[in-house]
Amino acid sequence: MGQGAFVDLYELTMAQSYLRQGLTGEASFAYFVRAPVPHRRFLLFAGLDPLLGVLEGFGFGEDDLAYLEGLRLFDGAFLAHLERLRFTGEVRAVEEGEVVFPGEPLVVVTAPRIEAQLVETVLLNLLNYATLVATKAARIVLAAGEEAVLVDFSPRRDHGVEAALHAARASYLAGFHATSNVEAGKRYGIPVAGTMAHSYVMSFPDELRAFRAFAHDHPQPILLVDTYDPLQGTRHAVQVARELRQVGRELFGVRLDSGDLAALSREVRAILDGAGFPAVRIFVSGDLDEERIQEFRARGGVAWGYGVGTRLGVSWDLPALGGVYKLVEDDRGPRRKTSPGKVSLPGRCQVWRDGFRDVVGLIGEQGEGRPLLSVVMEGGRRVAGPPDLAQRRSVVREALFSLPPALADLSPVADPHYPVELSPRLGALTAGGR
Amino acid sequence: MGQGAFVDLYELTMAQSYLRQGLTGEASFAYFVRAPVPHRRFLLFAGLDPLLGVLEGFGFGEDDLAYLEGLRLFDGAFLAHLERLRFTGEVRAVEEGEVVFPGEPLVVVTAPRIEAQLVETVLLNLLNYATLVATKAARIVLAAGEEAVLVDFSPRRDHGVEAALHAARASYLAGFHATSNVEAGKRYGIPVAGTMAHSYVMSFPDELRAFRAFAHDHPQPILLVDTYDPLQGTRHAVQVARELRQVGRELFGVRLDSGDLAALSREVRAILDGAGFPAVRIFVSGDLDEERIQEFRARGGVAWGYGVGTRLGVSWDLPALGGVYKLVEDDRGPRRKTSPGKVSLPGRCQVWRDGFRDVVGLIGEQGEGRPLLSVVMEGGRRVAGPPDLAQRRSVVREALFSLPPALADLSPVADPHYPVELSPRLGALTAGGR
Repeated sequence: MGQGAFVDLYELTMAQSYLRQGLTGEASFAYFVRAPVPHRRFLLFAGLDPLLGVLEGFGFGEDDLAYLEGLRLFDGAFLAHLERLRFTGEVRAVEEGEVVFPGEPLVVVTAPRIEAQLVETVLLNLLNYATLVATKAARIVLAAGEEAVLVDFSPRRDHGVEAALHAARASYLAGFHATSNVEAGKRYGIPVAGTMAHSYVMSFPDELRAFRAFAHDHPQPILLVDTYDPLQGTRHAVQVARELRQVGRELFGVRLDSGDLAALSREVRAILDGAGFPAVRIFVSGDLDEERIQEFRARGGVAWGYGVGTRLGVSWDLPALGGVYKLVEDDRGPRRKTSPGKVSLPGRCQVWRDGFRDVVGLIGEQGEGRPLLSVVMEGGRRVAGPPDLAQRRSVVREALFSLPPALADLSPVADPHYPVELSPRLGALTAGGR
Repeated sequence: MGQGAFVDLYELTMAQSYLRQGLTGEASFAYFVRAPVPHRRFLLFAGLDPLLGVLEGFGFGEDDLAYLEGLRLFDGAFLAHLERLRFTGEVRAVEEGEVVFPGEPLVVVTAPRIEAQLVETVLLNLLNYATLVATKAARIVLAAGEEAVLVDFSPRRDHGVEAALHAARASYLAGFHATSNVEAGKRYGIPVAGTMAHSYVMSFPDELRAFRAFAHDHPQPILLVDTYDPLQGTRHAVQVARELRQVGRELFGVRLDSGDLAALSREVRAILDGAGFPAVRIFVSGDLDEERIQEFRARGGVAWGYGVGTRLGVSWDLPALGGVYKLVEDDRGPRRKTSPGKVSLPGRCQVWRDGFRDVVGLIGEQGEGRPLLSVVMEGGRRVAGPPDLAQRRSVVREALFSLPPALADLSPVADPHYPVELSPRLGALTAGGR
């Protein structure tokens, strides 16, 4: 029981009016992203399972009802209705980790109108952020290439603790290898990883002693070499690597977190190779994103892996996704609004994918190719358990590295063209106005 | 008990090493924002009380410890140390809602080194986001002016449910009047507000019937007039306003959410005034931020209030704040790192404000003006209850509208100049290297 009060106030005032007016029949709402999304040639859908978990527990607690009563906006009949309210509807949705496009319905909720209306705020909140950050992560995966290891370093800049959990989950789903976020590791079974901080180095009288202590105390040490001077730090790391080798161990890697990362990484690689440590890995971090990783690689930077934080977790160049949740059908048939620039598709839709040509049509139409939406919740209960994230991640990585070049291209584009068409029946319905 | 596992993995591996190495004495860390912050002439500090609440409950639960044990990175002695660990330190901090600048220590934590280290992730996460969104909100308050009503409409685009709660709290602290977020209203005592959605209008056979129903069912109706055509919608609103007046009621307002808001608002005002309803308010929304509100006003737009969502809650033009938490002092004295471009101030510092000239010096120095940091937590307990948000909000609004023009200016600036100086003793210490 919970999350009911995470709702925009107007959902409740509208719901009370629906109850009074007898507008309590079934209604369908669709979640979709309006075209175009600048600088995104595709979206990676995510956030569904966390949402379904919220829907299964949706309801209003005693404290919620007491608070609402105190607002003096709601009558006893409506509060009694809320007290009993659970989400009992059907949800059709695209699978998490699917490559999708603006203009396509990604989730279709069918439920008694008040239920369908009241879940809007939390549905939009969870799907918009998870899809935003999964999409950003997918672009970073493409930029880093199939060989590179990617670690989510975003917790300290994400928008709250919960955001960091969503970011870890969505980036792993999109192909990242690990997260620094221990709570996310515990909760979702995501591998956790980390190196060391500047403050550790500064806690010792000198860098060499700090490196020795860390290498002694960590089974796979990655030494942060740039607290004072990165090349001198690398020579200290070499010294520790030699000492480890004498006792039968190997230094795992070194990390660079500042300065001209591409140039420094080549110098560090040369020092390590020259000293007989070609297997010591170089891990780089520091305000990275897909553009900076591409530039790093283009300039001959050498890295085994990347830690990506701030710009991943807040989706730096596009910090919000404008996904919307619109009434598409009720007992009077398909519905749509026609505000300037905000046209939506009417009716309960399906998406068929044939290669990378997507066709949006009405449920019941005979589409060509693979239908993307399936029933994931019936009567307010999930029809299956949570997805196996590790297995989905493998599928997603393979799909990303198989994208056609026109979609995999990461260069900025103000107005991307998406391969989405309407079915003849849907096209006719749309042209017909409301 | 909780939040312990919301930590970057390296905090734990470093902490285990500190324990083994006997580095368990007191250490001080400072939270500050490195200069410069593009497009921000000041910051509004926020997030402290939520952080202090987390620190009071900081610790590792059984499930956390079981998970950590399974990682095979930690020994029994360290896990036993974590099981007993609470935050027992001192926190000095600036008051929430204070106007502050990059380069100034905003929070100074002094605690046994392992405690001080382990709270880093959650401290940065909470302070960075709250200060980011409070700062964005303060700019929007300045743009809207002293007369305008501002409502937080961000829940559906914020990065998770928790982010939306922080956004509502921080924007209210910064001078907003209300939030649409019912849970935030319940939790923080923030006034809640809302209008109606396009889906409500579409749920009726026509707009006029929808308006009539809503006005009947809501004590202070604000009618959304742009589902189909905003001027026709306004005429429908006028008709409903006339019907309400016949029964002794008044229409509260109309809302515009799309199109050319400035031009439409003038046309809507003219229709309302011409029909004898000069007191009916115009509320505008739709991807607003400080720049768009300034433009709306400059173009003669007429609004009683603004709903601000996406661009507030994600701080659209600057979606992350690079606040850092650095070791500044331990039992060997003041500490600092010297990585290129990442220099930090050594020692436990205070900030003195004399007009809008700020001087950063060492605790114990005799500064001129008002000291900004005070002790807010001792022995891991808050020294006072949570701040009175409504009262702080009044103080903040007054401070914002009294800012000198050079700071209140909202125009973009790549490299703002901040009025922050170092005291002679701190200057000498900083010049002396590590």
